[in-house]
Amino acid sequence: MIKNNFELLKRGTEEILPIEEFKKKLDQSEKENKPLTIKTGFDPTAPDIHLGHTVLLRKMRHFQDMGHKIIFLIGDFTGMIGDPSGKSETRKRLTREDVLRNAETYKKQVFKILDEQKTTIVFNSEWLNPMRFEEILELTAKYTVARMLERDDFSNRYKSQKTISILEFMYPLIQGYDSVALKADVELGGTDQKFNLLVGRDLQREYGQEPQVIMTLPLLVGLDGVQKMSKSLNNYIGINEPPKEIFGKTMSIDDNIMFKYYELTTDVPMGEVSQMKEDMQTGKMHPKDIKVRLAKELCAQFYDKKTADEAEAEFNKIFVNKDTPDEIPEFKVQDSDLKDGKIWIVKLMVLAGLADTNGEARRLITNGGVTFENEKIADPDFELSKNNGIIKVGKRKFVKILFS
Amino acid sequence: MIKNNFELLKRGTEEILPIEEFKKKLDQSEKENKPLTIKTGFDPTAPDIHLGHTVLLRKMRHFQDMGHKIIFLIGDFTGMIGDPSGKSETRKRLTREDVLRNAETYKKQVFKILDEQKTTIVFNSEWLNPMRFEEILELTAKYTVARMLERDDFSNRYKSQKTISILEFMYPLIQGYDSVALKADVELGGTDQKFNLLVGRDLQREYGQEPQVIMTLPLLVGLDGVQKMSKSLNNYIGINEPPKEIFGKTMSIDDNIMFKYYELTTDVPMGEVSQMKEDMQTGKMHPKDIKVRLAKELCAQFYDKKTADEAEAEFNKIFVNKDTPDEIPEFKVQDSDLKDGKIWIVKLMVLAGLADTNGEARRLITNGGVTFENEKIADPDFELSKNNGIIKVGKRKFVKILFS
Repeated sequence: MIKNNFELLKRGTEEILPIEEFKKKLDQSEKENKPLTIKTGFDPTAPDIHLGHTVLLRKMRHFQDMGHKIIFLIGDFTGMIGDPSGKSETRKRLTREDVLRNAETYKKQVFKILDEQKTTIVFNSEWLNPMRFEEILELTAKYTVARMLERDDFSNRYKSQKTISILEFMYPLIQGYDSVALKADVELGGTDQKFNLLVGRDLQREYGQEPQVIMTLPLLVGLDGVQKMSKSLNNYIGINEPPKEIFGKTMSIDDNIMFKYYELTTDVPMGEVSQMKEDMQTGKMHPKDIKVRLAKELCAQFYDKKTADEAEAEFNKIFVNKDTPDEIPEFKVQDSDLKDGKIWIVKLMVLAGLADTNGEARRLITNGGVTFENEKIADPDFELSKNNGIIKVGKRKFVKILFS
Repeated sequence: MIKNNFELLKRGTEEILPIEEFKKKLDQSEKENKPLTIKTGFDPTAPDIHLGHTVLLRKMRHFQDMGHKIIFLIGDFTGMIGDPSGKSETRKRLTREDVLRNAETYKKQVFKILDEQKTTIVFNSEWLNPMRFEEILELTAKYTVARMLERDDFSNRYKSQKTISILEFMYPLIQGYDSVALKADVELGGTDQKFNLLVGRDLQREYGQEPQVIMTLPLLVGLDGVQKMSKSLNNYIGINEPPKEIFGKTMSIDDNIMFKYYELTTDVPMGEVSQMKEDMQTGKMHPKDIKVRLAKELCAQFYDKKTADEAEAEFNKIFVNKDTPDEIPEFKVQDSDLKDGKIWIVKLMVLAGLADTNGEARRLITNGGVTFENEKIADPDFELSKNNGIIKVGKRKFVKILFS
């Protein structure tokens, strides 16, 4: 039984093109009780899924909950052929085994968000590998050079005389052809995918199909509030991180990006979100309480309500009650690390994993962020005697130091 | 035994690029007694070969006579796939049978010029049909959009916002890949093929081969002295035309293009050609005599020396002696075509094949080009009584009219 909720589908999207066609498709699917085919493509590599990815996955889930057919497309074809231009050294050719293993990694993560029973996983090598030269030429006949060069990055590179290989014109055609092969009704993607999604729309028309509607979703800004969330920028919340990490990291974001997180990563009704925003501006609500709710929402999403409550309690214990957490990792100092029965604090911090380098440990101390048994350590040359106790670095890093 | 004649190979060429590499390849082939692989591509359609085509074929023959390996490549791949853009309505998809039949048509004609025993005919579908998507992408990775857009016609069309489909970028790549598949040392083509030949050179380098040298040959100007020789412009000399047609048509060309014909379509040493040109300018030789030699050279090439002599004698009989030729076609007037025992001259001319329409017959008469038994017919309303005799139209059309 299909029951569409246009407002929920529209929530958080950057663009829906063309919106009138989208409404028509929704109406028709409801009237005929015929699910729409929703396509979303993913790399064949196996990323650690973070909150940024969930923006797209949650939108897929919305469609799924309304009764539509979700296709999780793994673009293994290009991954398995590697990058024949030889320009990207980091891009390794994946084997069939790699791809299947990566697919498993995906599954383990995405079914925290998607309904496994209602998700169809497909690999595009299935229809691309057997294509004959003739069919490939037919595909290339259906798109023009001028339209390809309209894509922003191509256009800029062409104007600034940077190399574009003809291979690069093939990728959007391949991605677009996937929509033809799947007879997609809607394709979802990040805003950076807009051009490729539109190519799919054009190609479907050329192949005599009803063109897909495209829906783009914004890139989620990272914890720094500036750059997009990504693992390499270390400004992310991984969906497999421990609840207290998810909670703590959420609590660290800026007040001004909090409402965007509500919109894109939770189902808290937009009316409530607006109300909270207003209440914060008028001083009726403290920003911290709004953030706590967000943190709990996210913990509950990736774990459950109970875990979310526990994470909150733990967080309060540390920060609100300025207490130490229940579980603190321990570090045993080896006798061989002692000198005259003492250990240099900088060396100890590095050994215990509280700093990566001596330099970092020194800075942390100089900045006043290091305590031992709640006493601030001000001198980077300080040497600790054989006294067990807790070193705390910043707000959330603790290690219990034990001497043998 | 390879024995190169650089001057003969260079004769009549528009460009040899790069010429130093060409010399090196020739030297090496002689030194190692190893034939060069000479590639020339032809359409899979079956044209009536005319003198314009022989410019290229004769150059192939030159290489052949020096001991090199001549590859007559029939580009059947694209012919068999048709034009998937659907833009060219005239371009029909050829079947395997069409291609083989066309190949036979080619053979019947080209072996008037090439040595059949030393010619290798290949079809590019042989290596293109089995190519996998992966290999095709590898090919597209080896050429850039910018270089493709440097081709004159692409560049002009792009600037004037005329459509270029991505398919059109594929054709030069395919033609270039043929050179890779054949490991060609030299590729010959018309001047309009220069860009495509250079793509082959680039691709061979990309595939780790020694790049081919390219040799372009000019388009032969037609009998009108203005446009390139082509069947559709009806300004051509077909190599299968009767000797007297070849002779007569050659005699009709302008004096100023005669020496280009000598250079491109005969082996008369260039020293002699220059001498004739000088002798004509100083008045030592009559242009007509120089043209007669050319006409005989061509007749001898496509038939033999004796036939050439006969064609000359016949020509002299008609034009020089103002006599009628030995063999005149006859036309028998049927009684049913008579009216009061007479026949209207216009009707007679059309029936006898001397004019296509009444209008044309009238014009020929009005222009003073029609005689009956050497008497000029001035009146288009003239009616001929039952007198046998010869109608002559223009300089070279005769029909003997017979009444029963």
